[in-house]
Amino acid sequence: MSKLWGGRFSKATDAMVHQFNASLPFDQRLYDEDITGSIAWARGLQAAAVLTPLEADTLVAGLEQVRQEFEQGTFPFAPGDEDIHSAVERRLTELVGPVGGKLHTGRSRNDQVATDFRLWVMRAVEQLQLHLRDLQQALIERAEVDLSTPMPGYTHLQHAQPVTWGHWLLSHFWPLVRDGERLRQAGVNAAALPLGSGALAGTAYAVDREALAQALGFATVIPNSLDAVSDRDFAADFLYAAALLSIHLSRLSEQLILFSSAEFGFVQLDDAYSTGSSLMPQKKNPDTLELTRGKAGRLLGYLVGLLTTLKGLPSTYDKDLQEDKEPVFAAYDTLCLTLPIMAGVIRTLTVHPERMAAQLEPNLLATDLADYLVRRGVPFRQAHEWVGMAVQMAEQANIPLTALTLAQLQTITPQFGPDVLAVFDFATSLEQRQAIGGTAAAALQAQLARAKAVG
Amino acid sequence: MSKLWGGRFSKATDAMVHQFNASLPFDQRLYDEDITGSIAWARGLQAAAVLTPLEADTLVAGLEQVRQEFEQGTFPFAPGDEDIHSAVERRLTELVGPVGGKLHTGRSRNDQVATDFRLWVMRAVEQLQLHLRDLQQALIERAEVDLSTPMPGYTHLQHAQPVTWGHWLLSHFWPLVRDGERLRQAGVNAAALPLGSGALAGTAYAVDREALAQALGFATVIPNSLDAVSDRDFAADFLYAAALLSIHLSRLSEQLILFSSAEFGFVQLDDAYSTGSSLMPQKKNPDTLELTRGKAGRLLGYLVGLLTTLKGLPSTYDKDLQEDKEPVFAAYDTLCLTLPIMAGVIRTLTVHPERMAAQLEPNLLATDLADYLVRRGVPFRQAHEWVGMAVQMAEQANIPLTALTLAQLQTITPQFGPDVLAVFDFATSLEQRQAIGGTAAAALQAQLARAKAVG
Amino acid sequence: MSKLWGGRFSKATDAMVHQFNASLPFDQRLYDEDITGSIAWARGLQAAAVLTPLEADTLVAGLEQVRQEFEQGTFPFAPGDEDIHSAVERRLTELVGPVGGKLHTGRSRNDQVATDFRLWVMRAVEQLQLHLRDLQQALIERAEVDLSTPMPGYTHLQHAQPVTWGHWLLSHFWPLVRDGERLRQAGVNAAALPLGSGALAGTAYAVDREALAQALGFATVIPNSLDAVSDRDFAADFLYAAALLSIHLSRLSEQLILFSSAEFGFVQLDDAYSTGSSLMPQKKNPDTLELTRGKAGRLLGYLVGLLTTLKGLPSTYDKDLQEDKEPVFAAYDTLCLTLPIMAGVIRTLTVHPERMAAQLEPNLLATDLADYLVRRGVPFRQAHEWVGMAVQMAEQANIPLTALTLAQLQTITPQFGPDVLAVFDFATSLEQRQAIGGTAAAALQAQLARAKAVG
Amino acid sequence: MSKLWGGRFSKATDAMVHQFNASLPFDQRLYDEDITGSIAWARGLQAAAVLTPLEADTLVAGLEQVRQEFEQGTFPFAPGDEDIHSAVERRLTELVGPVGGKLHTGRSRNDQVATDFRLWVMRAVEQLQLHLRDLQQALIERAEVDLSTPMPGYTHLQHAQPVTWGHWLLSHFWPLVRDGERLRQAGVNAAALPLGSGALAGTAYAVDREALAQALGFATVIPNSLDAVSDRDFAADFLYAAALLSIHLSRLSEQLILFSSAEFGFVQLDDAYSTGSSLMPQKKNPDTLELTRGKAGRLLGYLVGLLTTLKGLPSTYDKDLQEDKEPVFAAYDTLCLTLPIMAGVIRTLTVHPERMAAQLEPNLLATDLADYLVRRGVPFRQAHEWVGMAVQMAEQANIPLTALTLAQLQTITPQFGPDVLAVFDFATSLEQRQAIGGTAAAALQAQLARAKAVG
Repeated sequence: MSKLWGGRFSKATDAMVHQFNASLPFDQRLYDEDITGSIAWARGLQAAAVLTPLEADTLVAGLEQVRQEFEQGTFPFAPGDEDIHSAVERRLTELVGPVGGKLHTGRSRNDQVATDFRLWVMRAVEQLQLHLRDLQQALIERAEVDLSTPMPGYTHLQHAQPVTWGHWLLSHFWPLVRDGERLRQAGVNAAALPLGSGALAGTAYAVDREALAQALGFATVIPNSLDAVSDRDFAADFLYAAALLSIHLSRLSEQLILFSSAEFGFVQLDDAYSTGSSLMPQKKNPDTLELTRGKAGRLLGYLVGLLTTLKGLPSTYDKDLQEDKEPVFAAYDTLCLTLPIMAGVIRTLTVHPERMAAQLEPNLLATDLADYLVRRGVPFRQAHEWVGMAVQMAEQANIPLTALTLAQLQTITPQFGPDVLAVFDFATSLEQRQAIGGTAAAALQAQLARAKAVG
Repeated sequence: MSKLWGGRFSKATDAMVHQFNASLPFDQRLYDEDITGSIAWARGLQAAAVLTPLEADTLVAGLEQVRQEFEQGTFPFAPGDEDIHSAVERRLTELVGPVGGKLHTGRSRNDQVATDFRLWVMRAVEQLQLHLRDLQQALIERAEVDLSTPMPGYTHLQHAQPVTWGHWLLSHFWPLVRDGERLRQAGVNAAALPLGSGALAGTAYAVDREALAQALGFATVIPNSLDAVSDRDFAADFLYAAALLSIHLSRLSEQLILFSSAEFGFVQLDDAYSTGSSLMPQKKNPDTLELTRGKAGRLLGYLVGLLTTLKGLPSTYDKDLQEDKEPVFAAYDTLCLTLPIMAGVIRTLTVHPERMAAQLEPNLLATDLADYLVRRGVPFRQAHEWVGMAVQMAEQANIPLTALTLAQLQTITPQFGPDVLAVFDFATSLEQRQAIGGTAAAALQAQLARAKAVG
Repeated sequence: MSKLWGGRFSKATDAMVHQFNASLPFDQRLYDEDITGSIAWARGLQAAAVLTPLEADTLVAGLEQVRQEFEQGTFPFAPGDEDIHSAVERRLTELVGPVGGKLHTGRSRNDQVATDFRLWVMRAVEQLQLHLRDLQQALIERAEVDLSTPMPGYTHLQHAQPVTWGHWLLSHFWPLVRDGERLRQAGVNAAALPLGSGALAGTAYAVDREALAQALGFATVIPNSLDAVSDRDFAADFLYAAALLSIHLSRLSEQLILFSSAEFGFVQLDDAYSTGSSLMPQKKNPDTLELTRGKAGRLLGYLVGLLTTLKGLPSTYDKDLQEDKEPVFAAYDTLCLTLPIMAGVIRTLTVHPERMAAQLEPNLLATDLADYLVRRGVPFRQAHEWVGMAVQMAEQANIPLTALTLAQLQTITPQFGPDVLAVFDFATSLEQRQAIGGTAAAALQAQLARAKAVG
Repeated sequence: MSKLWGGRFSKATDAMVHQFNASLPFDQRLYDEDITGSIAWARGLQAAAVLTPLEADTLVAGLEQVRQEFEQGTFPFAPGDEDIHSAVERRLTELVGPVGGKLHTGRSRNDQVATDFRLWVMRAVEQLQLHLRDLQQALIERAEVDLSTPMPGYTHLQHAQPVTWGHWLLSHFWPLVRDGERLRQAGVNAAALPLGSGALAGTAYAVDREALAQALGFATVIPNSLDAVSDRDFAADFLYAAALLSIHLSRLSEQLILFSSAEFGFVQLDDAYSTGSSLMPQKKNPDTLELTRGKAGRLLGYLVGLLTTLKGLPSTYDKDLQEDKEPVFAAYDTLCLTLPIMAGVIRTLTVHPERMAAQLEPNLLATDLADYLVRRGVPFRQAHEWVGMAVQMAEQANIPLTALTLAQLQTITPQFGPDVLAVFDFATSLEQRQAIGGTAAAALQAQLARAKAVG
């Protein structure tokens, strides 16, 4: 521990304060958005006759050169750079001379950073939606293959009623559709332009903010300059969408972990998504799924962190707001790994229908037995009670429900007729549920078609 | 503490388990939605020829009678009632006889409770939006009165640039517009019908779910029965919208608390919204604002609670989901008090423009001084530096910036001309910021008009 | 929904503000501590010669009468009572006349409520420790019964190595010991006296605070009056201890839910702790365990709520602090149900050793096979690799690891000798792990003895 | 954004999975603890006669060489290294040959990583306590200087009663003492040894775990192998202590930000701890304090993240637990900057007693006025009411409370005598509060002495 720890403690004050205040280590990620925003601002100043066309051209060419340096990894950082904005402007002025000092006319880092960050979130949303759609696609593909493969359905993790593997897979498709919509909303909320709000009071130059918005791809202009530099709702929206998405993935992971246990044995992860043990030579562990499940905590933590930072903060710009970017970047990076890995897990999963079939035990049809009585006019409550008695009778005799004879059933109620045995068929049971969203073949096909249309 | 504590410890097991499992103490709040949902279900079963018209009519009439009992406070709860669904069905059967036992045909409490809760959230959203719009209205009204009343604007809680009281008030209007949109989205997400999904596998009866949705005011039908009984996203969306709204209110509260301190003295709360001290006879405390600020923690806690409960939960119905309702009810109740109280605070606030004016010190115009140089062709960076020197010169001479003579200013740069003194005027400064969202009179009028159109 | 909703909206302002500010609905729970604190204060004022002995006697007798009214449920609340302190003092004055107005001399509700709440938390900790010890006891009892019952041990929910049911049960005992210690610490932190700190600046009367502390059972006196009325760390400590305890219970619940699934079948919950389904007649659901798991979210939410409320709050008393009590009360109430119910679940659990035995498959002994090679001098890394090859060989031949012949094993390495077959014995495997905390009989007995000594 | 984004999306599956699973990027920070733990393990295997003395010596020498490589920054990472444990063992084997493969005998990464991480936390606690004590020292130093400098005391951010600047500073000292105790507890909880628990079932070799504990500085041995690899309470305890500490710092920051506003003007931050504005030349912003306040959100987020990850997790080792280290490292790093910076802020703060004195207005003495009446035998309630009338009388006459004539006061009650005017003295008021924790000089000296003894 020695060396790694000792240094910081004795660091000179100003170095420590510089490190504490500096956002460059993380906000350099915004270089592209910062330059794009600055180019639009330069053109805006030109249109407002604050810059001459020549000055604006010089600034734009210089900014493009700075962008190229970043993209080629040759940008020369200087010790005094405290954030991406000052680094870019400092470098620009080195390249184009004193006219570089005109770029910041009428704007502030307060509206500048808000603009950069919103642009970044708008693009991050697009990228995540690509990943999300790919995972949705993987679920659809595999659901189609096993659309009618029967498996036990669970509530309370207890055997409930038969469903199909395809139906189960699609039940994890629809939450992702909602996640996509939440991400889209976060993107919409980000797409409101703060640039032209100055530090807090607006800009003293006749810049056309509507034109700026159009140039930068923003849908609207923020109508209040104080709110413009203060509003981080879009970041919270992004983190909320990311957190709920990751919670959905944790639920899918949890079930696949259960299903890949020796006791269930419904599925097997591909070797590429499993790892071994340092001690136990036989182990094949679903590490990728466990990490995905565990990272839901991390993403919820990011959301809580930002919201707590915002709580009780006076409006306009306070430095506390600098805490907004790291959680958003980290949430994005996490999902950029988690989503494709989950898609890979789904695409390469080996399914064992025979293990699912082995769990199709007669009790799963108890509801069908009650429905049989209902069709004969018995009120459902009464039917539920009689079938409960049948279940108990079978349990006490230590035989499956299906092994009860008609005579035995009729000791409960004469409503049980000879045709009752036809109930005990899993295919029939699945086919009964024909309403939208149910397990009948036609309903499943309709669901699949709807998913394909959406996904 | 004695009696209150001893009892529970020795309570009989089954009483304790009953209390632990029972949701009736809180879900009785859903009686109206439960009955509305059951009536629609009865008509659905009738349309599917599962019930005769006479049976359906009997059930509907009985359900309306149960509703009336609830509304009149005469509903007779029974010891065995464990939730609102079983209480209503038990009472219905008492009123209409065995046909009551037919109501639950083809549905489960799993799809039933999801339906009830979604209906409730849809109505809660509408109600909160009324409260929200009233608060927005209060902000607009007061902003209009003081649209051009100058006050110091702050960043980092330090004097920054002049703004107006109306501008500041409106900066708290726009976040509420975003909150309204988030609440609306939560309502949209709630408006997807689970009914007809049974326990998890769908219903075995030919009920028309599209017709059900239409009858109950749902916009869509949930396309997967497993997801239908498992999805609580709409509750999380509601809690997120509520939490962020309350954080916005905490920021408004924080500032009004500051502004009503002796040192600021910008505003004074009406007596109706203040309270005294048990010890200090002179105190007038902004308790309502402090509670509003503090309750942001509570609302964030509700969101974290639900999301953590959902994390890692297998899909379909697990009893953990019963933890969904209390935080939503509590968040709603909290906002139903907080929002109108905040509207009342705003409407009855006494504003002291003279105290604001007393804080309008020359440093607030330093940016204007830099803009003066910019208009004379000085690059902004250079102008910023020269004005910084002027600020320091004034500080060292212990005089206001405005007391520097032209000669003194010109020792810094001859760019300062005789017309520089015109800069030192707060009205002029405000009028400079004419772009959208700025402090100029026309910009403020435009903002107000836009707010009125939205609010 | 109609009636329940309409009312509040049109409620008169002051009624709404009263409801918003009032803490009586929840802080009446502090009546006993409030009266105990007031009696100590009266005697303190008497000792300081602020009250005559007669006055003090009168106040004490009156306060005891008020306490009796609370205990008998006859305390007459008045419309103006806004908190438990004002209710008690109002009633006291009704009973004893104007001298009642002398009780509040030199104190404030700020130090009073902090004293009451700390007293309550001190007693709540004691009560929870009783519940906790009972659950610990239940785990010890059941562990003793099945101390040597073999079961598959899991990592990553995959079969890993054999352990025993008693060992597994005790693995959930030790976290509760840590929880007990955390609760004890919260109690210690609560036991510092704020009384005598006034509103914020101390008391102007010569009250002996050390004597007060002793009279009320506090261990120390808070040494700074501003901190005394501001500090809510003890409440946060309590909520943190409660949250982590509930997370431990969620982990135990999760595993018991898995183990009671049809696929595992290791345990069966007693009927008293299970419930049925409204639709599916055969269901027996582990509702109590699911609720216990779900409530971990709720308890984490309470912790987050309080910490967020405290964030950024100026010190001394702000009304935000009134948000401290409801989460603490709710956390306490939740655990007062959850802990005894979990104890009941454990005590009444049916264990199926034969289902556990059925899962004892040879791969669980792969580590023992590697240990066999190590004992013959093979470096562990090499042994791990060779056993991995054996596992793969068996998998490819689709036979259990134990069915490999010696000849087959020796194709991997001649280090496998004829005595290798002795490795394939689960009892032997368990007995190998003799170090502290291991699965050997003596180690388990030692662990059990240590648990009994602690529990 | 182009290049930075595109790459990851097309990355080969296994590279992505490797990145997802790999902990080396963050757990390499544990190299020192990993090597220390491995040396103890090698000696333990030697004592158990599993390794010869020569083998053990070889391993120890090799491990020390690896440690040196890390300390000198020359450790050669290899592409296959997935965590610090495999990196160290791989390098060790390169250096010492096949005997390196014997080091992992009888242990697993599961008990190894838990050992490393606990050692790290034990040392992190010590380091943080150094930083914490330095901040405590800074508060004591500055409190001593201004122990009797009067300032207005606030509740609800309203003027309440006079206190002193030293008293106020010390009110932020005591919470840090509690934080130190919480950190110490986290260290105690970390100091329980998991090594020798294997993957989950214990070790098959006769290693003396008590001796191991002693060699590594652990206070106790974890008594259950399943719990040993599963328990992360110590990490949660650390994060909770860190979160509450940062919330205390947020409260101190909040007040210093207020006090350094133009309106309060009580203090001025040193230039070294302030920063300027990119737009407004006159600004001096308390950025360090704002960041400190904002980071409380981040630290709460880390706590929530870990607790949510643990919720519902089966016991023993699941890969989700790999999410434990990053938040702990990040919390530590954050506090290693925040604490010394806060100490620097305090030490370099300029205090303006004259600005504090300017806010000492007569209403702050209203309580003293009531105490005056109490000393004349008026019950406090009555006194409180009469003084309230005096305050109102002064307000209506628009004069300070002190400007009321005796005649005016006597229209309220003849109990006001000619000696009442002596009440209106701030020094007297401060001196009245002599009980422990109060504002009298002797009480403050006693508090300071106690703080010095503790700090």
